[in-house]
Amino acid sequence: MALIVQKYGGTSVANLDRIQNVAKRIAKTYDKGHAVVVILSAMAGITDNLIDMAGNISQTPDKRELDVLLATGEQTTSALLAMTLKSMNYPAQSLLGHQAEVLTDQCHGNARILDIRAERIQELLQDRHIVVVAGFQGCDPNGNITTLGRGGSDTSAVAIAAALKADVCEIYTDVDGVYTADPNICPQARKLDAVSYDEMLNMASLGAKVLQIRSVGFAKKYNIPVHVRSSFSEEEGTMVVDENSGMERLVVSGVTHDKNQARITLKKVPDIPGIAAEIFTPVANAGIVVDMIIQNTRAEGQTDLTFTVPRADFKQALEMQTAIAKKIQAEDVFGDEKIAKVSVIGVGMKDHSGVASKMFNALAKESINIMMISTSEIRISCVIEEKYTELAVRVLHSAFGLDKNG
Amino acid sequence: MALIVQKYGGTSVANLDRIQNVAKRIAKTYDKGHAVVVILSAMAGITDNLIDMAGNISQTPDKRELDVLLATGEQTTSALLAMTLKSMNYPAQSLLGHQAEVLTDQCHGNARILDIRAERIQELLQDRHIVVVAGFQGCDPNGNITTLGRGGSDTSAVAIAAALKADVCEIYTDVDGVYTADPNICPQARKLDAVSYDEMLNMASLGAKVLQIRSVGFAKKYNIPVHVRSSFSEEEGTMVVDENSGMERLVVSGVTHDKNQARITLKKVPDIPGIAAEIFTPVANAGIVVDMIIQNTRAEGQTDLTFTVPRADFKQALEMQTAIAKKIQAEDVFGDEKIAKVSVIGVGMKDHSGVASKMFNALAKESINIMMISTSEIRISCVIEEKYTELAVRVLHSAFGLDKNG
Repeated sequence: MALIVQKYGGTSVANLDRIQNVAKRIAKTYDKGHAVVVILSAMAGITDNLIDMAGNISQTPDKRELDVLLATGEQTTSALLAMTLKSMNYPAQSLLGHQAEVLTDQCHGNARILDIRAERIQELLQDRHIVVVAGFQGCDPNGNITTLGRGGSDTSAVAIAAALKADVCEIYTDVDGVYTADPNICPQARKLDAVSYDEMLNMASLGAKVLQIRSVGFAKKYNIPVHVRSSFSEEEGTMVVDENSGMERLVVSGVTHDKNQARITLKKVPDIPGIAAEIFTPVANAGIVVDMIIQNTRAEGQTDLTFTVPRADFKQALEMQTAIAKKIQAEDVFGDEKIAKVSVIGVGMKDHSGVASKMFNALAKESINIMMISTSEIRISCVIEEKYTELAVRVLHSAFGLDKNG
Repeated sequence: MALIVQKYGGTSVANLDRIQNVAKRIAKTYDKGHAVVVILSAMAGITDNLIDMAGNISQTPDKRELDVLLATGEQTTSALLAMTLKSMNYPAQSLLGHQAEVLTDQCHGNARILDIRAERIQELLQDRHIVVVAGFQGCDPNGNITTLGRGGSDTSAVAIAAALKADVCEIYTDVDGVYTADPNICPQARKLDAVSYDEMLNMASLGAKVLQIRSVGFAKKYNIPVHVRSSFSEEEGTMVVDENSGMERLVVSGVTHDKNQARITLKKVPDIPGIAAEIFTPVANAGIVVDMIIQNTRAEGQTDLTFTVPRADFKQALEMQTAIAKKIQAEDVFGDEKIAKVSVIGVGMKDHSGVASKMFNALAKESINIMMISTSEIRISCVIEEKYTELAVRVLHSAFGLDKNG
């Protein structure tokens, strides 16, 4: 018999009826003889409501107290689910973050899990209890409540699965798996049966809708198979597993896009040591995450430098660079918000040459100009004009043989 | 400078505006140099909403899980108040029951406080923090969340005041103190400046509206002065103190009434040993609380026996006694729901004779028939016909010189 960790998201526990459905699903797994640990999110919308309430008190509410407030959301659903299971005569018990001994650092609002001493969970499992753990929350070494950031319940689930050496961590959500592309813009997109941890990590824009990316790192580190599936159907979803676990290795598993991009170019930057630091240190200090950086050397000891930032930070970053350009005597600074990034991802790429040229050709055939290129072992990303995003995704999806009827 | 514990009830923290007002009041106390510990209830209505929600899952929701659910109410207000104080640049920190080390027994839903190791509160006070403690909740020796029953935040406050050896425990509520009678039926009722612990304990019907009676026992045991006052005005309320603390000793401090009464009489009960046990054991086993018991010996080895029960339990108790009467061969059983209990209470009674006869005379003058009488050291209670309740309260209030303009 297996040890199964099940995590249910906010839409799955949005009201008492849905909690009842979740309870039935858990009971079914338990009745098969499995040991079951359940991790819950807050009811859909509740966390946002609480954040809004805090926002009415202060634009920058105290982070420690905000965590105390937010933690009530998962506390509520955990109590209600345990109560429901008990009313169905199943032995169940809820545990809060500190009771499940989810030890984190002190970074309120975005804490990292340091350790899970799951002794109490183990004891309850030995007594054949169903253990219901409030997700998203932990406590720091001083016993203060912390939360793990947006989607943190996924990380709770995978980390608890790792601590318990669970056989599988099932993530129940309102989508039925990971798709080869966003079905909203690519009707030919299909659900993947399996995807590797690394592909998932590179699929931020597709994957983040179904799974907090940080949880994937945990799953990879401890080699926990994660099953992403819908809580509204019985169908199998997508397994996120080690790439050597016998899964079919597609050359390209998915095509992702990201419109949350903006680009800044510094023209004719003096090409001297230390100049990159001068350009990027202030940006990093402002907490702005730079994604791609491209440098083209010109003649005469000068270089052009282009980088991308999240669109929300574009204005601030551009102002910074305008000041910096003056200081370092670059010729000009300009920016562009109307860009997007499209990527193809696949562990199979490692063994296949020609993926990049196939991508470039497919885009060229539609006269889509490539502005920037970056690559990793299992991903190739191109920055293009924003207006071509949907077209580019469909073209690439088809070119790499991902279409449903392809 | 004093150490002051302030408790704010549900109506005082019913929304963000009121929480802001509470924060201002706390800040004022803090600015005078006092050390301040605040105990909070849940927002008015929230606890009932949560109980209703649990009631939709099961008619008998699991008590452990119900406590986990209910505890979110005080957690929410504590976080919001601490956040508000921080936004006003006051050093504040919230503590939940287990963080404040409120140790209770395992009686979920009505737990008793065993111990408060207030180390963390002490440390925070030494750093000149305002400590905001979630009322109503504690944890048992295994770290499970418990709650202290209806009005339990009062008990939290007094118990924490006792643990900290506070100078005073201020209970902020929506009434401005303890009255000599219910102002709704006795317009001449006035607010008492002071009342003794024992009087308060005997004033259930008057006192319970402003203070959980169990908290008074705590206050008496540890001799903590309790100041019951309104959170909506600056006026002094009522001090609940030791009777030897120099307070003016009125012969009678208050007149209370209780319509939640019903009476059952067994006629011509064989007067033999063990008969009372046979009558009352089943009632006790059914969880019905018997208040007054009166036995009149008749001739011929028979006795009449009358007792009162809460009106909600009347039907059940009457059915029981009908069966018992047959078994023990009592002649008849009859009951009466249309009764009420009026009481006069006062520590001064101990040293004054004639209080009882004054009470009986006052009622006789209005032709109010007394059905049953019971007395304690500082209280005399009479059961009368329900329809005379309001008249009796006003007559007694006047007879004992309690009237405002008297």
